[in-house]
Amino acid sequence: MAKKILIIGAVALGTKAATRCKRVNPDTEITIIDQGQFISYGGCGMPFYISSEVDSINELRATSANVIRDPHFFTHVKDIDHVKIRTKALEINPQEQYVLTENLDTGEKEKLFYDELVLGMGSHAIVPQIKGVGLKNITTIAGLEDAEKIRTHCEKGIRHMVIIGASFTAIEIAVGLADMWNIPCTLIKRSKRMLPNLVSSTVSDMIRHDLEEAGINIVAEEDVLEFAGDDEGNVCEVVTNKQRIKADHVILAMGVKANYELAEKAGLKCDPKYGVCVNEYLQTSNSHIYAGGDLIAIKNLISGKEMHLPMGSLANRQGRIIGTNIAGGNPQTGLETFPGVVGTWCMKMHKGTVAGTGLNEDMAVKAGFDAVSINMEQLDRAHFYPEKHMMTLEVVVEKKTRRILGMQGYCADGTAVKARIDTMAAMLQFGKPTLHELSIAEVSYSPPLASAMDVFNTAGNVADNIVTGLGEFIKPAEFDALFEARDSNNYVFVDTRAGQAPLELCKKYPEYWLNIPLERFNEDMEKIPADKNIAFICNSGTRAYECLLKFKRGGRNAVNSSGGMQAMKKRGKKY
Amino acid sequence: MAKKILIIGAVALGTKAATRCKRVNPDTEITIIDQGQFISYGGCGMPFYISSEVDSINELRATSANVIRDPHFFTHVKDIDHVKIRTKALEINPQEQYVLTENLDTGEKEKLFYDELVLGMGSHAIVPQIKGVGLKNITTIAGLEDAEKIRTHCEKGIRHMVIIGASFTAIEIAVGLADMWNIPCTLIKRSKRMLPNLVSSTVSDMIRHDLEEAGINIVAEEDVLEFAGDDEGNVCEVVTNKQRIKADHVILAMGVKANYELAEKAGLKCDPKYGVCVNEYLQTSNSHIYAGGDLIAIKNLISGKEMHLPMGSLANRQGRIIGTNIAGGNPQTGLETFPGVVGTWCMKMHKGTVAGTGLNEDMAVKAGFDAVSINMEQLDRAHFYPEKHMMTLEVVVEKKTRRILGMQGYCADGTAVKARIDTMAAMLQFGKPTLHELSIAEVSYSPPLASAMDVFNTAGNVADNIVTGLGEFIKPAEFDALFEARDSNNYVFVDTRAGQAPLELCKKYPEYWLNIPLERFNEDMEKIPADKNIAFICNSGTRAYECLLKFKRGGRNAVNSSGGMQAMKKRGKKY
Repeated sequence: MAKKILIIGAVALGTKAATRCKRVNPDTEITIIDQGQFISYGGCGMPFYISSEVDSINELRATSANVIRDPHFFTHVKDIDHVKIRTKALEINPQEQYVLTENLDTGEKEKLFYDELVLGMGSHAIVPQIKGVGLKNITTIAGLEDAEKIRTHCEKGIRHMVIIGASFTAIEIAVGLADMWNIPCTLIKRSKRMLPNLVSSTVSDMIRHDLEEAGINIVAEEDVLEFAGDDEGNVCEVVTNKQRIKADHVILAMGVKANYELAEKAGLKCDPKYGVCVNEYLQTSNSHIYAGGDLIAIKNLISGKEMHLPMGSLANRQGRIIGTNIAGGNPQTGLETFPGVVGTWCMKMHKGTVAGTGLNEDMAVKAGFDAVSINMEQLDRAHFYPEKHMMTLEVVVEKKTRRILGMQGYCADGTAVKARIDTMAAMLQFGKPTLHELSIAEVSYSPPLASAMDVFNTAGNVADNIVTGLGEFIKPAEFDALFEARDSNNYVFVDTRAGQAPLELCKKYPEYWLNIPLERFNEDMEKIPADKNIAFICNSGTRAYECLLKFKRGGRNAVNSSGGMQAMKKRGKKY
Repeated sequence: MAKKILIIGAVALGTKAATRCKRVNPDTEITIIDQGQFISYGGCGMPFYISSEVDSINELRATSANVIRDPHFFTHVKDIDHVKIRTKALEINPQEQYVLTENLDTGEKEKLFYDELVLGMGSHAIVPQIKGVGLKNITTIAGLEDAEKIRTHCEKGIRHMVIIGASFTAIEIAVGLADMWNIPCTLIKRSKRMLPNLVSSTVSDMIRHDLEEAGINIVAEEDVLEFAGDDEGNVCEVVTNKQRIKADHVILAMGVKANYELAEKAGLKCDPKYGVCVNEYLQTSNSHIYAGGDLIAIKNLISGKEMHLPMGSLANRQGRIIGTNIAGGNPQTGLETFPGVVGTWCMKMHKGTVAGTGLNEDMAVKAGFDAVSINMEQLDRAHFYPEKHMMTLEVVVEKKTRRILGMQGYCADGTAVKARIDTMAAMLQFGKPTLHELSIAEVSYSPPLASAMDVFNTAGNVADNIVTGLGEFIKPAEFDALFEARDSNNYVFVDTRAGQAPLELCKKYPEYWLNIPLERFNEDMEKIPADKNIAFICNSGTRAYECLLKFKRGGRNAVNSSGGMQAMKKRGKKY
């Protein structure tokens, strides 16, 4: 008799598991249920549908050959035995191996028995329980219905959009509204920094500046207290602890939480913060019940700690593994495994793309590492090649062992920064890479695509120099702070660039700004006042580093502003 | 007393070693000699100077801050003690630790003593010893002087350019001449395939088609026998074993060979085919003599065999290591190592970029692996995102262990294919990745930059299916051959695409071409004649794979043309 497979949830993981299982082992009877109307859609594409970059919502539901992935598609093309939409799972009974379901249209209840059960219930949008949250035109962004509501409202005309939260989705929607609809948009967030668990303060500043350049108003460190409505019950204001902000639409994009209640009630082991616990075969604490995607807690391979990483790409990869495993395993190699994640992501914004992998400095410290994070700037291609972009890379290192714990980056060419971050992601997945291994990492080179000493390798070199103690660095914000306090801290700022720009700063700040280009440094170094503290800055950090070394050979010390004026510019800081 | 460092060669490796050494340990006395006029230039940029994408030759000699890297720069800015150009090394004496040198302008000879010696003599262009090779307007592409000659001749006007060889440089120059100067260019090569040691026949076909689309005339499998000249001693024809080809300029780009004669004479261990042998510290068989860059034989970490990989990026990375080591090692971690290479490269052409890492199928078989190479096609971004490109990836696998031995790719977006190849390069450097590890490799995802199941992961899935025996595949050229022989081999070709294109092919080949779209396959599969051999094809290979599985469940077998019509199109093959 065919093995009975039951799958709850049909957005990403569930359908992938079902179709893979059928291909590996056609001798299975597969049932998928989902409580929604739409199944198997590209949820990550919603911001681009809202922005109108994606024309029709059906594009998010179609295969690359333009066939809509509806229940008929799964039963007739993918040979899945039963697909039941608008069908909710009410109870999982692992002892008797059934799931009690309810048809949301007819109210009919049914016990579906299984040999293997797959949980792909995903996550739900976090909704704050505050006054006015039920007003009209306040939407989450949890599914296609939400996306349609927002897009329709955009088409009718929105004057004031407020987005609560600054998740990837929140930021992508804000950028889309600004770039494609020209709708003024306010983004309200609790934390001070952008993506505080993913990037450094330096890259956070770059994200903020990128969004502000798009005309997005960022309100940080404020709490939303309530929503005010008009006479017709439409939202019209967002009230924070500091101000009232006009809004004729509000999007709640405060992140998501795993839908693990049913699993918990069934006695499956769950992490209260992150979701259902699974082993490396993606089995829950009951070996006949598999789970994956947004629903599960997942192990971070660097920190060793559990985390929640709700991403469509993970759901797809895990869905395939579950599909293979419920089919009885790969015919040649048996059960397949998913060891965990290092945490790799990217997000296109207005002018640039930000991407990262592994831990940022804060998360590394939290995980118990004695970590430092070092930012740098270099062109992504040969400097003599006409097309090129200044790339920011930031390396997070454990000081003592020189082990790399993470890397983040920002660049106008999104694919170029993705290339470096994905390469580091592979290094983090396959080893415990050191700074030296980053310095010599073999990446492809040709002037139209890379530098001979690629920005990726240079990031290793820069961090290696700093950890070794060859060059003392300060972060851009630390340079800002030193400059702010210049009347009292006895600092002089030595600009080692050539050209016109530093001369203008000398004129502007005659007592504080000194210009000694690298090329004249040996001769002119003695002009640097002996009784002052010195901070160096140049274009990208390299020239100032060389001057710093010369200065040290002369018996003095100083600091160098990492990333130089290029990092300042990307942060929107003008001197 | 300061340690005396002597460095022979100042193009890439030598200057990098010198400047790094000085930064780590200023208490060294460093002398660099070079027989040329120009030092420290971006040799890999020459094709882009010839094409005029790079305006002035000085851009290849300048830092990113536009300072020319001449001897004065190295002595005054980089604090290198002595830089002697037009100075040739005549003899290395490892016993007495000196190098005998000759000033090429004055003829003066001098013994330069050293504590540590660095060999960075690079390589020379291979010049065929055939009749007429000394004619005017026949140039190698070994240095800036050559590049200037070619560019000057382009500016004067060339009607017929012939390039002998099909190295990266040869192809880059041909593309530049075609795209930027509109100069008709013939590329003559001995082998049948393009880059035969680096890519498969499928990717080779794509390279050839890309170049032909640029108007480049590719003459393969011919031997150049002699060059004919006019009355003034200018080259005017290239004579091969099959034809005479007009030429008013000829570029010899037949590859390079390491300049290891001096090292060999000094008794240092050399590989006659590849160059000077070094250990992981980049020391030659004499521990006071280091070598790197184009000069050395280097270990391929996958095949375990020595090879020659003359690339500016390797010279730079190795130069830094040598610089650290001759300085006495990293102050914290000691001597640094360079374990070898996996062989990673990329090249921008006319419409697309080709890139690769590790072994291709032929090299893998030569190295003793039971290998198979599997090509596939998928978009580089979410299929619903407006900007996207069809990417080719080819995975080379050891069948029994499923270990990945290499990956090559082709895509209109060069950085997108570089991203995937560099990620695989990291996997190859840091482990022995399997197909399963490729399937679940964690790469960053967002619709504007990747697919939820990224082309990188899908390449693993496709290869996994084939190695497991789920889907029988044939290479595009094998499909071509089956179709060519259709009058005698009893084959029918089943096109599983929807839409108009397959219907037209059915009309064109009524006896041989059948259209059964995936969506109707369950119902219409019985129309496939029972007494015929069957080859499936679709747009990219995916739909045909699903049909193939359905067909097998029905008790029959068939083959699937990998990469489908997309691979055919990139190869310039029309049906």
